[in-house]
Amino acid sequence: MTDRLTGERLVDDMTEAERDRAQRVESVLPALRAAAAKADEQARFPVEHVALLREAGLLGLVVPQEHGGLGGTLRDLAAATYAMGTACPSTALAYFFHNTSASRGLLPLEAVEAGLFTDAEIPAVRAFAGKLLKRMASGVWLANFASESVKSAAANITIATTARRTAGGWILDGEKSFGCATGVADYYLTTARLEGHDNAEGLATFFVPRDAPGVSVRAPWDGLGMRATANNGIRLEEVFVAEDEALTVPGAFTRMLRMSRGSFVGNQLAIAAVYTGCAQNVYDVVIEQLTRKTFADTGRPIASSPMHQQLIGEMTVQLETAYLWLRRQLLLETAQPPLRPKEEVFLQWRLGKGSVTECCFQVALGAFKASGTSGAMMGGVVGRALRDLAMGLVMTFPAERGRLEVAQLVTQAKENELFAVADRP
Amino acid sequence: MTDRLTGERLVDDMTEAERDRAQRVESVLPALRAAAAKADEQARFPVEHVALLREAGLLGLVVPQEHGGLGGTLRDLAAATYAMGTACPSTALAYFFHNTSASRGLLPLEAVEAGLFTDAEIPAVRAFAGKLLKRMASGVWLANFASESVKSAAANITIATTARRTAGGWILDGEKSFGCATGVADYYLTTARLEGHDNAEGLATFFVPRDAPGVSVRAPWDGLGMRATANNGIRLEEVFVAEDEALTVPGAFTRMLRMSRGSFVGNQLAIAAVYTGCAQNVYDVVIEQLTRKTFADTGRPIASSPMHQQLIGEMTVQLETAYLWLRRQLLLETAQPPLRPKEEVFLQWRLGKGSVTECCFQVALGAFKASGTSGAMMGGVVGRALRDLAMGLVMTFPAERGRLEVAQLVTQAKENELFAVADRP
Amino acid sequence: MTDRLTGERLVDDMTEAERDRAQRVESVLPALRAAAAKADEQARFPVEHVALLREAGLLGLVVPQEHGGLGGTLRDLAAATYAMGTACPSTALAYFFHNTSASRGLLPLEAVEAGLFTDAEIPAVRAFAGKLLKRMASGVWLANFASESVKSAAANITIATTARRTAGGWILDGEKSFGCATGVADYYLTTARLEGHDNAEGLATFFVPRDAPGVSVRAPWDGLGMRATANNGIRLEEVFVAEDEALTVPGAFTRMLRMSRGSFVGNQLAIAAVYTGCAQNVYDVVIEQLTRKTFADTGRPIASSPMHQQLIGEMTVQLETAYLWLRRQLLLETAQPPLRPKEEVFLQWRLGKGSVTECCFQVALGAFKASGTSGAMMGGVVGRALRDLAMGLVMTFPAERGRLEVAQLVTQAKENELFAVADRP
Amino acid sequence: MTDRLTGERLVDDMTEAERDRAQRVESVLPALRAAAAKADEQARFPVEHVALLREAGLLGLVVPQEHGGLGGTLRDLAAATYAMGTACPSTALAYFFHNTSASRGLLPLEAVEAGLFTDAEIPAVRAFAGKLLKRMASGVWLANFASESVKSAAANITIATTARRTAGGWILDGEKSFGCATGVADYYLTTARLEGHDNAEGLATFFVPRDAPGVSVRAPWDGLGMRATANNGIRLEEVFVAEDEALTVPGAFTRMLRMSRGSFVGNQLAIAAVYTGCAQNVYDVVIEQLTRKTFADTGRPIASSPMHQQLIGEMTVQLETAYLWLRRQLLLETAQPPLRPKEEVFLQWRLGKGSVTECCFQVALGAFKASGTSGAMMGGVVGRALRDLAMGLVMTFPAERGRLEVAQLVTQAKENELFAVADRP
Repeated sequence: MTDRLTGERLVDDMTEAERDRAQRVESVLPALRAAAAKADEQARFPVEHVALLREAGLLGLVVPQEHGGLGGTLRDLAAATYAMGTACPSTALAYFFHNTSASRGLLPLEAVEAGLFTDAEIPAVRAFAGKLLKRMASGVWLANFASESVKSAAANITIATTARRTAGGWILDGEKSFGCATGVADYYLTTARLEGHDNAEGLATFFVPRDAPGVSVRAPWDGLGMRATANNGIRLEEVFVAEDEALTVPGAFTRMLRMSRGSFVGNQLAIAAVYTGCAQNVYDVVIEQLTRKTFADTGRPIASSPMHQQLIGEMTVQLETAYLWLRRQLLLETAQPPLRPKEEVFLQWRLGKGSVTECCFQVALGAFKASGTSGAMMGGVVGRALRDLAMGLVMTFPAERGRLEVAQLVTQAKENELFAVADRP
Repeated sequence: MTDRLTGERLVDDMTEAERDRAQRVESVLPALRAAAAKADEQARFPVEHVALLREAGLLGLVVPQEHGGLGGTLRDLAAATYAMGTACPSTALAYFFHNTSASRGLLPLEAVEAGLFTDAEIPAVRAFAGKLLKRMASGVWLANFASESVKSAAANITIATTARRTAGGWILDGEKSFGCATGVADYYLTTARLEGHDNAEGLATFFVPRDAPGVSVRAPWDGLGMRATANNGIRLEEVFVAEDEALTVPGAFTRMLRMSRGSFVGNQLAIAAVYTGCAQNVYDVVIEQLTRKTFADTGRPIASSPMHQQLIGEMTVQLETAYLWLRRQLLLETAQPPLRPKEEVFLQWRLGKGSVTECCFQVALGAFKASGTSGAMMGGVVGRALRDLAMGLVMTFPAERGRLEVAQLVTQAKENELFAVADRP
Repeated sequence: MTDRLTGERLVDDMTEAERDRAQRVESVLPALRAAAAKADEQARFPVEHVALLREAGLLGLVVPQEHGGLGGTLRDLAAATYAMGTACPSTALAYFFHNTSASRGLLPLEAVEAGLFTDAEIPAVRAFAGKLLKRMASGVWLANFASESVKSAAANITIATTARRTAGGWILDGEKSFGCATGVADYYLTTARLEGHDNAEGLATFFVPRDAPGVSVRAPWDGLGMRATANNGIRLEEVFVAEDEALTVPGAFTRMLRMSRGSFVGNQLAIAAVYTGCAQNVYDVVIEQLTRKTFADTGRPIASSPMHQQLIGEMTVQLETAYLWLRRQLLLETAQPPLRPKEEVFLQWRLGKGSVTECCFQVALGAFKASGTSGAMMGGVVGRALRDLAMGLVMTFPAERGRLEVAQLVTQAKENELFAVADRP
Repeated sequence: MTDRLTGERLVDDMTEAERDRAQRVESVLPALRAAAAKADEQARFPVEHVALLREAGLLGLVVPQEHGGLGGTLRDLAAATYAMGTACPSTALAYFFHNTSASRGLLPLEAVEAGLFTDAEIPAVRAFAGKLLKRMASGVWLANFASESVKSAAANITIATTARRTAGGWILDGEKSFGCATGVADYYLTTARLEGHDNAEGLATFFVPRDAPGVSVRAPWDGLGMRATANNGIRLEEVFVAEDEALTVPGAFTRMLRMSRGSFVGNQLAIAAVYTGCAQNVYDVVIEQLTRKTFADTGRPIASSPMHQQLIGEMTVQLETAYLWLRRQLLLETAQPPLRPKEEVFLQWRLGKGSVTECCFQVALGAFKASGTSGAMMGGVVGRALRDLAMGLVMTFPAERGRLEVAQLVTQAKENELFAVADRP
């Protein structure tokens, strides 16, 4: 098993085709790893990685072969973001967001197949989806924005960006945060609410070219970790987008979501794979350091001290637990036929997201303690991992929130079940 | 999925043949469940369960069809002990120990196939293995003892029971603890050290009939939980066992172990499945109770209080984590071809055993807290689960020990690796 | 420090007078310790302890000397229940409930001093309080009931027992749970709601003689732990209580509560002291066992294994944390002048109660794991401690509830503060 | 209590004299707070703080009045470092190290009183101690180095710096790490091993002027937190120190340590007070932010969401636990007469150090999660606190190490006790 690919530590039953695609990922890891420390220090997305990934064909990793891509699935994506996460978590995260754009093409096409669109709507849906997938396959980097700054008690994400009609297209206004590759991506794939709608039915998707008039990059966001992702966010002021550069069929967004097996537009587990790769790397590096370095008096490795043994044992179990949640979710989201109903798959990820990221952070914390004062640095693998993995704790939602949501769902389901039973004649 | 079998909550990709076997298990659950409370209260193994399981054909669950059994694998066993664990953990545990006896027949046969025995040895090995499997398939209950009372710093289990030669057979002396079904099983399958040997090479296996002269049942062991397993243990004083009722080929035991993919004689995860079934049951019962019972002032379920929501969220994530470890181990121990090398499978279980049992205990503890003072009873599903699941924490070894062992293995592996690299010219 | 009294492990700055009183407690410990195992096994309050404690003068421990008592304070009570907790937690708990009755005399007298009663009310208040304290000092055991079975979302305790007027006294109806010494105490000190009132203003206190007509003992409550406390609870059906055996001044209860520095009627920390004594005892016993018992191969104590060292370290820190919370609360509730405002003292105990009891349970859990399968018994110091300390987790409220309540109080306080600032002209 | 001083949150029973000294600390907090963010960002010790603290008389805080100081004790020091920790943890830490220098004067003087020095030695000891204390009182900043880079399995700190005789003084060679105020302090108080000694008897103390020939500042140490402490460390190459600028009486160091009630040279709890101040500050800031900020849909504070309530409850209990350990240790190290024997005081701090710093880190982690992605910044109160408090986890030793050490001490003590009992005739 000496030629085991990095991604196979996560996806340990790859097919040959998957291994071929994973080989492309493997080939870019040395460059990613070499640039990681400096990219973090300068809080700068290494733009040269765009060409690197494009040349490796990886920008179309999850685009079907009929659209010119490599035909990978969520399994490939998770293996790829995991592998990149061992080398440069920031790049892995930005790459994840690029790939998640694909679902804006794939899910609408699935919804068409499923009969969710009318004949009148289908051409527009197909045209947009095809364009999106073809662009990705041809080497275009698409930034995909995750959130906005308004918080609601009732929803995880609230969309305040608006699109209003104009001749030949739309005018967009708003602000987007936490999308990676700001100022780097070729297009910003942007969700906005169509004028005259006040719910999810009115959500539409737009290609906003990086350099379009009215688009500005927000001030750099000085994050604790994942600093090399260019996640400043953008501001849109009266930005014009042409008719055919948007998917504005009302209800397209919600119909698309119905096709997703996991949460939101799916794929979320591939972010968690980034963190798991990062955790595996800091684990490997620290175990090696602590084994190589010895006590002056006994000559034994530092790693062999009782305290280090305790820490290593705990790091190991945390790391393994992260893999377990990831692998299970990956199975649930890819098994054919589905193993479990969609609502269970969704619910599982409300728990899984937090569990993976907590475990990964604990690995970094163990590595930090095990390294002692001399390793408690801003940079270095340990310091970076602690900061990068701290970001996972708050990404999307903290573990505590996911657990409370699941508790609510579990309780409601039981209430309904008891009510239904009581109600029977 | 309304006809989902209990065991499918754990093994959710059963084949049809597996479902058929699981159906037999399903059929005995109501009787097990009905007897559980009283069995615990009286600390008495419900002997009537022996006939029940025999009649359902379940005593030969994991015996190959060519030996007259049902042909189940570790997957069937885990599904079965899990399912029984939801109804009566004590019976599930005793049933587990009966089944684990099969490995004393199966592994030697595999070792024969693998060429580990000489031509001269093979007939004795085959005869013993065949007899053992045939007995199980025909409805004989075999108790299988886990440990003795001497503790060593270097080993998990130390065997002090001895066997010395006599005309036509052997004389056994010793004491065995923690085997279930004392006074109930038809035979005690007993490991002893042959006279003149002082290491594992001298370990041999004997059929000791329940009522053989010199066999006595030790005083009842007043366990905190798993009280209905009849695990008093036995005392052997000058017990004669005939030649053909033993496997005394020197080194048979260690050669047999080389065939096991997991730890020890394998199957250990099926004990952990007992605990997981128990945890699932207490979880289900408590969620229902807390949803059915309402606050006098608001009419809302008790389950909906902020404290209960927090507890339910945490119980859910613990329960789910137990499943993850179990399912992964099951996959590792049954996948063909093997996913990971044997040493990794072993190491994984050093972590997994503790993780599953800690998670299950946490579920019970959450259920206990959620039930409040009025539920803090000796009996009742919650009180029993807390006691039964506490047993899991110490069974074989606590989680802390497994983690420290893994830390040691990880460190040594890295030392060897670094040494090997340093050593190259 | 060889003559250090048991209670001084908790209260380590005793005055000479306190040491004298603690000496009386010390004298009864051997008898309590000797009876503990059997009392737990039989789930029977050792009635002979009543005479033992009476003869040691301890029934009036916290009754002021002017009322014939020993003049102890909460410091004495905590030291006493802690010390008894090391010997027999059940007796310590029952003794706690007896002593907490004193507050029903002391707090009203303090409220009189503070001018909270009118001249017309004072004689009735003084008469009741004096009678109560004198009875305790003279060796009468008073049971004091903690709760009822109705649950409200808004309150920790709801009182549904009622008292209605009759010639020369009152008629009581209701049911009480979790008071100790059912069938043992001389009187049940009973809180009931006066007819025509529907809030706390109508709460009144009654002496109900153990053998009064209409009083019945509920079925034995088969608790997981604290089994020797006779906490069956009582049922009151048309029970007559004479005028002068009650304190029925409307609002007496709430005015009394205003004098309590801690939570409810105060003294709650002395229950937590019971658990802490129990935890110290199981810790001491297990450390000794594990040091005395050695590995067969190395001759070193079991306690010295890496796993045991980890467990001992964790048990030690948990035990120490329990003491910290207890000592701090004791200081807050007894310091003159008060160190912190009453609301902070209250809030601190919402955190402290859960923290002490969680820590104590963790000590027992550590002891349980450290003892291994052979120590996992129903009885024995470890098994009993695990069960007795589990009761602490649910007593009054679980840690999770206390923390959520504090969070709510902290948040509201900050909201009010911000609002007040915003509101200033 | 509106005029409660910051330090009184920790030391809540200050005398008037202590309040007077604490008032001086209070007066410098605004300046410290104002400079904190930038100091962290630039990783630069704000040298202007030296003058600020000097002018407030604070450089002689713990120097006795007869030596010209303010006469504060460890209580004052802990209150001061705590208070400064709420404003600028880096400055608080550097100030702590300056103050700990005082023990190099105070403990030798106590050892003289205790008769540990001969008449011949006393003048040299008194002269050095007096000079040191007088310098501090007069406004000289003394850096005090904590550790070196060599690690031993058997000791927490190993001293490899050497001093060899030369005409009129000594020549020092070595390297020191983690002392604060490198390049800022007036003198580096340096421990070195005298030529010809190979154990602690040979340790001596030297005043090394900041600008002495042969002294160089090591490269900036890019720490994760506590970045504004100038803790680069120094290199000493053939540095001459005059005879009367050193305490070279053999055995002076070990005799001095015998006078310390706590661990090492005592005072260590005042570092933990720095972290506790930092934790209190991040707690206060986050509660205010989360209360001020509201949900767009409900208008309720973010703090009121179930997840935030859970996090706030947990942060509160962690913060309170940190105070408990600190206050207890402070009491143990300052109570007259001593409450507990020196070995218990020492042992308590092996647990306490880790407990305080773990709790404080958990507060920061809770604050981080509660603040969400938008608060996950490098700077800002939350980001800084997370980084500063992470340093506490590794400072001196991690919690895990302290616990294992205590386990070892507890086990050995019990072994000795059992041995002694067994040994009696």
